[in-house]
Amino acid sequence: MRAVTYVKNNTVEVLEKPVPEIAADEVLLKVGGAGVCHSDITIIGFGDDNPLVGGTLGHEVAGTVERLGADVAGWSVGDRAIVALVLSCGQCRECLAGRDNQCEVVAPRGSLAPLSPGIGSPGGMADYIAVKSRHLDPIGALDPVDAAPLADAALTPMHAINTVRDRLSADATIVTIGLGGLGHMALQILAATTGARIIALDTDPAKLAFAEAHGADLAIPSDGEAAARILAETGGIGADVVFDFVGVQPTVDLAIAVVRGGGAIRFVGLGGGEFSYTAGAGSGLPWGVNIERAYGGTRSDMRQAVALAEAGKIAVEVVRYSLDDAVQAFDDLHHGRIAGRAVLVP
Amino acid sequence: MRAVTYVKNNTVEVLEKPVPEIAADEVLLKVGGAGVCHSDITIIGFGDDNPLVGGTLGHEVAGTVERLGADVAGWSVGDRAIVALVLSCGQCRECLAGRDNQCEVVAPRGSLAPLSPGIGSPGGMADYIAVKSRHLDPIGALDPVDAAPLADAALTPMHAINTVRDRLSADATIVTIGLGGLGHMALQILAATTGARIIALDTDPAKLAFAEAHGADLAIPSDGEAAARILAETGGIGADVVFDFVGVQPTVDLAIAVVRGGGAIRFVGLGGGEFSYTAGAGSGLPWGVNIERAYGGTRSDMRQAVALAEAGKIAVEVVRYSLDDAVQAFDDLHHGRIAGRAVLVP
Amino acid sequence: MRAVTYVKNNTVEVLEKPVPEIAADEVLLKVGGAGVCHSDITIIGFGDDNPLVGGTLGHEVAGTVERLGADVAGWSVGDRAIVALVLSCGQCRECLAGRDNQCEVVAPRGSLAPLSPGIGSPGGMADYIAVKSRHLDPIGALDPVDAAPLADAALTPMHAINTVRDRLSADATIVTIGLGGLGHMALQILAATTGARIIALDTDPAKLAFAEAHGADLAIPSDGEAAARILAETGGIGADVVFDFVGVQPTVDLAIAVVRGGGAIRFVGLGGGEFSYTAGAGSGLPWGVNIERAYGGTRSDMRQAVALAEAGKIAVEVVRYSLDDAVQAFDDLHHGRIAGRAVLVP
Amino acid sequence: MRAVTYVKNNTVEVLEKPVPEIAADEVLLKVGGAGVCHSDITIIGFGDDNPLVGGTLGHEVAGTVERLGADVAGWSVGDRAIVALVLSCGQCRECLAGRDNQCEVVAPRGSLAPLSPGIGSPGGMADYIAVKSRHLDPIGALDPVDAAPLADAALTPMHAINTVRDRLSADATIVTIGLGGLGHMALQILAATTGARIIALDTDPAKLAFAEAHGADLAIPSDGEAAARILAETGGIGADVVFDFVGVQPTVDLAIAVVRGGGAIRFVGLGGGEFSYTAGAGSGLPWGVNIERAYGGTRSDMRQAVALAEAGKIAVEVVRYSLDDAVQAFDDLHHGRIAGRAVLVP
Repeated sequence: MRAVTYVKNNTVEVLEKPVPEIAADEVLLKVGGAGVCHSDITIIGFGDDNPLVGGTLGHEVAGTVERLGADVAGWSVGDRAIVALVLSCGQCRECLAGRDNQCEVVAPRGSLAPLSPGIGSPGGMADYIAVKSRHLDPIGALDPVDAAPLADAALTPMHAINTVRDRLSADATIVTIGLGGLGHMALQILAATTGARIIALDTDPAKLAFAEAHGADLAIPSDGEAAARILAETGGIGADVVFDFVGVQPTVDLAIAVVRGGGAIRFVGLGGGEFSYTAGAGSGLPWGVNIERAYGGTRSDMRQAVALAEAGKIAVEVVRYSLDDAVQAFDDLHHGRIAGRAVLVP
Repeated sequence: MRAVTYVKNNTVEVLEKPVPEIAADEVLLKVGGAGVCHSDITIIGFGDDNPLVGGTLGHEVAGTVERLGADVAGWSVGDRAIVALVLSCGQCRECLAGRDNQCEVVAPRGSLAPLSPGIGSPGGMADYIAVKSRHLDPIGALDPVDAAPLADAALTPMHAINTVRDRLSADATIVTIGLGGLGHMALQILAATTGARIIALDTDPAKLAFAEAHGADLAIPSDGEAAARILAETGGIGADVVFDFVGVQPTVDLAIAVVRGGGAIRFVGLGGGEFSYTAGAGSGLPWGVNIERAYGGTRSDMRQAVALAEAGKIAVEVVRYSLDDAVQAFDDLHHGRIAGRAVLVP
Repeated sequence: MRAVTYVKNNTVEVLEKPVPEIAADEVLLKVGGAGVCHSDITIIGFGDDNPLVGGTLGHEVAGTVERLGADVAGWSVGDRAIVALVLSCGQCRECLAGRDNQCEVVAPRGSLAPLSPGIGSPGGMADYIAVKSRHLDPIGALDPVDAAPLADAALTPMHAINTVRDRLSADATIVTIGLGGLGHMALQILAATTGARIIALDTDPAKLAFAEAHGADLAIPSDGEAAARILAETGGIGADVVFDFVGVQPTVDLAIAVVRGGGAIRFVGLGGGEFSYTAGAGSGLPWGVNIERAYGGTRSDMRQAVALAEAGKIAVEVVRYSLDDAVQAFDDLHHGRIAGRAVLVP
Repeated sequence: MRAVTYVKNNTVEVLEKPVPEIAADEVLLKVGGAGVCHSDITIIGFGDDNPLVGGTLGHEVAGTVERLGADVAGWSVGDRAIVALVLSCGQCRECLAGRDNQCEVVAPRGSLAPLSPGIGSPGGMADYIAVKSRHLDPIGALDPVDAAPLADAALTPMHAINTVRDRLSADATIVTIGLGGLGHMALQILAATTGARIIALDTDPAKLAFAEAHGADLAIPSDGEAAARILAETGGIGADVVFDFVGVQPTVDLAIAVVRGGGAIRFVGLGGGEFSYTAGAGSGLPWGVNIERAYGGTRSDMRQAVALAEAGKIAVEVVRYSLDDAVQAFDDLHHGRIAGRAVLVP
């Protein structure tokens, strides 16, 4: 079968590999779609000697069940399914409590990332992938091409949003910065699942138009005027919750400048912006602001994202590429030529 | 009456001032005790020209009702009461939701501190204080000397703890750093209100002995070995929640070094330690760690702290000073000669 | 001024009464609209000798500020405002914690209802009403006629919904029964503030059409087929949360028949349906079902309802009556001739 | 091996059965202790033809790992472990969200009880039991005899308590009725994990003395004076939360008589007491009371219970019986001759 492989620093190739054998508790999934994510670009930049070299990429994967291992129950050939982002153990304290994205076995302290398809385990940019049946969730009648990006581009915002769900009441103001792959899903999830006022920001006018059409109460340019505008919109108090799906220095600064005292910021974008956090007055950060750098999501978050997509309440803006054109897709993403999410279709 | 007054930079004096008049919605409280807090030391260092110069200090205040304004209901002469830390408006969105420590009127964005007794309003280091009756809470039969420090030294830890209450399950590990004025109350509150494993740290062996006698499951020196010790105690995973009641560089570093992925840190001590928070990998901070710099507490937090004290489940280690000896108390606190909490007794 | 008055059993009259004097902490509100609620019908049936006889009715009240008491801050003449449903004390443990609908002073154990305008205090079916300024919330540019019913018809569903907010995730199924005064608001609030699947039921086809147009994923007749239909829609598992805005025997039976194990029911309608609750197996109620009979709401719930209305995300179906036609409005409501909410306009 | 078997109505016998074979994902556990529960008495009263006839009893089971299936990871021979009460699927929506006691596969709507050891699957009143490794939790150095009853007698109260955890603040009053097998664990869990005021009730003076020694703030007879006493203790307002571990008519009546408006009741005891729940005024139940009939608990609840026992913060009052004396143990339990929990020791 074909498999998009990280062959050396900043280089992927579509190689021929054997169709995987499946164990008794596994399913062979015929891949229907595999999303291409900024973190794939990051991963292939880890050098020539990284342990991930040689591995098949792809952590946003959906498809149809092709074959079942001997012990698999609850799945039938032909069922459509999405693959979990975190290949959690299912048995540790965190997994049992529904916090499987912090699985003590596959996401140990200090790890770069939890074990995922395409990150330590063979990924889904291929014709087939072998998956433990307990790492699959049903997607009903969703097209796997439309479903695949949910595994990260919707899951990660859903998780970040769920960590502050109790603050997103109808009288709250939300600021969400960045309307790219994850950000355009976050906006839709916020609009579908809260009644709060949503102020969406991006530097791209086309994305602001998208936001206005998809539930933003206000869509404004992410520029030097933005902070003052938001403070004015909130009577000088600031936003209850700020989501930063970019994470570069200007967006980090903006998040701090507009969050209210006792509010919350969720940093999701990995742009490397930073600030000095001080135990004491300082940082420009008001008292009582709650901060978290979200990563991935839980299986429960995944089911919520899929449910919204099935109901037509959210939809990924998909740009299709043949699996054979994977190199082109990576190049287009790297150069910012994709509006929405690139999906490889085997 | 006597009133401990901030007269110029780093200088307090006990001056004679008139007993305050009370408005129709106020109570004249005969002060029974007024705690001396590190933030009082900070405040009197604001210089010679600060607007606070000339003001009576004291934000930890309890006493007995001496006289009632015409419109006051629900209080009688002789009732014992504690004064709220935040003199909140009671009518804004935050107050109505029970988040009055973020009152939109008295704690506006960017303010150094909310309006409090002794911080923008006359404080309680005096023979009498005038207080709106709605800023009082009953303390039952508690001695006002023992109750006064609850207004900050117990309230602030109670609030910080309540912001992570849902993580303090019986199978969790808590690390609490610093056993001084706030920290020795935090330890007792944690022991009284959670079944979690508590690891307490301090540099002072006497305070570690106190911790062992007051509910710590483990009390260890806050030194260079501490991080490795805590990781070993938690199977390499780290602590679910870390409270830092010191906030100097070594304790900030320790908090980051021992918090688990998906765990939480609450910075309460204002020691000025800092770290670079990055939107992306870095900072040494595991994914999903939730951070908040707590300040003060709500009226509901206050009632919880008072209830524990009334039930004998927590107690402040009080060091009594006559109100006339206020200058000495400030000096002793400044030089670290007080174990527990200094309380001025008029 | 004119005042709709409960004069004897099942009888209201528009009487002439003096415009109220206001105290220092009160506002004189010129009434813009006053909703007519089923509970008004209930109240006037309390007999000829009830303490409420002689009182002005009306607990859904909005208007504009006409005059300010001497101590009132934060309000100006001409401001539009809505009156709180529960005239809470603002100082007890429940009020301080944001649970003012359970105020210990005005809603003591065993009381029929908390103190409200029109229920123990003069109501708003009049030209003017005197209100403590702290019992008012701003309504921005909303027409008081459209805003008035929010005080109960939106507040009460908002509260009931907020008591189970953590169960209303995007992968949940909600059943909501009854699309009358409160129910048609509940549907809109659920659609605006959750991404869950909403199944709405009523006996009236016109109301089902309304539901389909206002966010129901499925609208079905509340008949003998309904339970089987809902179980089929949920794979035999049942609904996560059931709201009953009717409360007659068939709807109570339906709620029990379709709630899932570990699910929740909120009974809001006061139709008098009942079932035998058993400590043990029985009642037909699955294990772990959480039940609550909601009443009114908090000030925070009110602010959320108003925010949704201001944003145009919910709207009351208003049927206007002149204040002089109050008797007719009561009669029309009593005979089921009103679709939506009757509002008296002075 | 020996196996305590339900042979016909109200009759158990110790029969000889083969040691179970284990599958690849199973562990053979050498039973160290198996608790005897009131529900075992109930089960054996299901008649002569029930599908459970012939089955080995015992749903409170702990022991040591004797042999490992081929695919089992994370366990070693000699490890001590406790068996989950609910043999959940681990993959459905409820399991993934940490609500495995409501597993959609093993606890379907309308089932009498979820699949458990001794209830649909061979139980632990035997020399050995085969268990899927993912249904085991570690118990550290705890003696399996002391640990076994935690699987239900501590788990079930822990779950009931966790469903109202957010109401158990330090300023709350808890009433807990019944200090038997589950109730004496509930008291200890409440004392260990909350700072709330605990009022414990029982009809047995010895159990009240136990309660006073184990953390009750007040222990009073469960008699005709109890309701008035509790209302007096709470200023006429009532208790925030009531736990009923008996469930007979007098305790159900008491629970209703003392719960506050907006409070909560958790019915755990299956004594068959009942009341008429009305959608409307009535039932004597104040507005806003939250009710739930708890059943079993989650894996996360289990880990919390075990953690408390390991830390010595709770302990079961164990009465040991040899496995050969199982019939005697059942008889003693049935006739109320056991103070604490009977445990069969193979």
